[in-house]
Amino acid sequence: MNDISSGKLRGITKLADTNGRFKMMAIDQRGSMVQAVADALSKDKTDVQYEDVAALKTLITRVLSPNATAVLTDPIYGHPYSITEIPRDVALLLAYEESGYVSEGAAENERLSNPIENWTIAKAQRAGADAIKLLAYYHPDASPETLKHQQAFVRHVGDECEKYDLPFLLELVSYALEGTTKSVAFAKQKPDLVIRSVEEFTDPSYKVDILKLEFPADLKYTRDYQNSDFYAGDSAYELAEVKEICQKLDEASTLPWVILSAGVDIEEFIENVRLSTESGASGFLCGRAIWKDAVNYYPDTNAVKQFLDNEATTNFKNANAAAETALPWFEHRQFGGAQNVRVAKQTATWYQEY
Amino acid sequence: MNDISSGKLRGITKLADTNGRFKMMAIDQRGSMVQAVADALSKDKTDVQYEDVAALKTLITRVLSPNATAVLTDPIYGHPYSITEIPRDVALLLAYEESGYVSEGAAENERLSNPIENWTIAKAQRAGADAIKLLAYYHPDASPETLKHQQAFVRHVGDECEKYDLPFLLELVSYALEGTTKSVAFAKQKPDLVIRSVEEFTDPSYKVDILKLEFPADLKYTRDYQNSDFYAGDSAYELAEVKEICQKLDEASTLPWVILSAGVDIEEFIENVRLSTESGASGFLCGRAIWKDAVNYYPDTNAVKQFLDNEATTNFKNANAAAETALPWFEHRQFGGAQNVRVAKQTATWYQEY
Repeated sequence: MNDISSGKLRGITKLADTNGRFKMMAIDQRGSMVQAVADALSKDKTDVQYEDVAALKTLITRVLSPNATAVLTDPIYGHPYSITEIPRDVALLLAYEESGYVSEGAAENERLSNPIENWTIAKAQRAGADAIKLLAYYHPDASPETLKHQQAFVRHVGDECEKYDLPFLLELVSYALEGTTKSVAFAKQKPDLVIRSVEEFTDPSYKVDILKLEFPADLKYTRDYQNSDFYAGDSAYELAEVKEICQKLDEASTLPWVILSAGVDIEEFIENVRLSTESGASGFLCGRAIWKDAVNYYPDTNAVKQFLDNEATTNFKNANAAAETALPWFEHRQFGGAQNVRVAKQTATWYQEY
Repeated sequence: MNDISSGKLRGITKLADTNGRFKMMAIDQRGSMVQAVADALSKDKTDVQYEDVAALKTLITRVLSPNATAVLTDPIYGHPYSITEIPRDVALLLAYEESGYVSEGAAENERLSNPIENWTIAKAQRAGADAIKLLAYYHPDASPETLKHQQAFVRHVGDECEKYDLPFLLELVSYALEGTTKSVAFAKQKPDLVIRSVEEFTDPSYKVDILKLEFPADLKYTRDYQNSDFYAGDSAYELAEVKEICQKLDEASTLPWVILSAGVDIEEFIENVRLSTESGASGFLCGRAIWKDAVNYYPDTNAVKQFLDNEATTNFKNANAAAETALPWFEHRQFGGAQNVRVAKQTATWYQEY
């Protein structure tokens, strides 16, 4: 199965660099970005102005996009102001899901994802999207109702992306049914949650093209990092086990996958990228690990810009360097090399049947 | 009127280089390409194989695309085989019209353009097109029926491009109602035909974004070129008059415009580019002037490749150099500078209204 439809092929090609490695920036945060702006302005979250968030996103996009092979933004605060800031050779990903989740389940501990109202895949394509990103929260042990809802949501986007022939990049985020994700207990559960979620959504019926995954372990709870700034003081595993987990994840992923940053600090993220790419990841789609500290300086836009020009740019360059040995997407076993990637229905009547 | 819809803005940005200049290659020829292959193979046109044309287009696209800011191809011989040959940072234009024309009018001397059967703007967008190109033959003194047909055809594509928010690049090609275009008589008519056609299709009701225009005079019949290889032996005008004609064309074009090559030799084309860009053109969309001689070597693909690697690449670089002083599209008076280009409906509810 190396045949791939024209639109998806063209889109995936644009998301990656010429060598097939993804070095993508996320600036589609909404809930977490509004909170960060509220903190910076010492305001309540509900008092944050739309214009502040849009202006900050515009600035981050302007300064950092040139380092990226693709930029992921959102259609609310991001796209209408940021589209002019994304260079011609940097691809555009647009988010489909509403920010955050609706709590569900007997203990209100399960998470349902939902679409942005009045926003469609068709609109995203018209607006210039080269690919669609969907974030779905997922816990394989949630109630059947919750699993069914999340699976149907992903399947809907898969169907729509097939219809419009856009690459479908699915982001899976795990969560704790009990307690917090910031614990050694969750760190121990995480490998199983991430890998089982990958097993679910690599099923061809979901029509996913690229997976955007959490690092499948937590280096804050990895003994070998006990001298790092990010070590949390307790260990769930050793580095050798983490490497095995990454290998298992790669075995489970029948699709090219990239690593996300989930707002960890840059030092930890670089380690995540290094370990993931050693195990077969094709790059990263990273937001806050690169630029989050810039928000602290808002509304001093000069200071924001200075941080972006310096520390954030360095962060991006370091992440790019760590991804330099990532597996090119066309070398993933799904494709088996650039020479085996071919347009589907490649005949004299392609345009009639397409 | 500097506001521009998201998709068109993103598409136009990708068609041009970072400075807003169009250096685009056309490889969407069908009728003329089949004839050229027939000549190279000493065959009848009807005996040319689909595979030969597709293979030749693939090779030309592979070698020359990296020099272009955008590549225009066709959905029949071109796209299914060439899409993998177009680099990620080179934009994709797809042709909408059927090659050639249907003869019409009392003396069968008028030309009607038609769509490719079972090919749509929606398909082109799904297949990865960043913009749509339509070639319409036009003679402002053709019969009312012919004018009406051609105008309706252009208007249909304009409406569809608006619906799918894709840039609409309209190519206008004049023709002789009597005699041949290769004559001093036609050379004298040409400025008037080109400028009157521009006056027609810059009407906002056609929703054109960029015009692809013939050089509005014929340097083969320009006295000052009497020592050039391409001079035809008779003069219709002097260079000073040609420059005035170019200025008049630019005054008539309320839209950014680029120059086409119509298969002239590279020396003449470079002069066309130089004179057009001096008068306000934003670059070129050129095919045969760059690569036509490569076809003569077919089926010796090594010789074809050698020509493409050497002469054709040099031709392209020379054309790019001549376009280096072209007017960036956003500096055209329609936009008035990059700082004035803004996404339409730029509000918090953009994604709902879009």
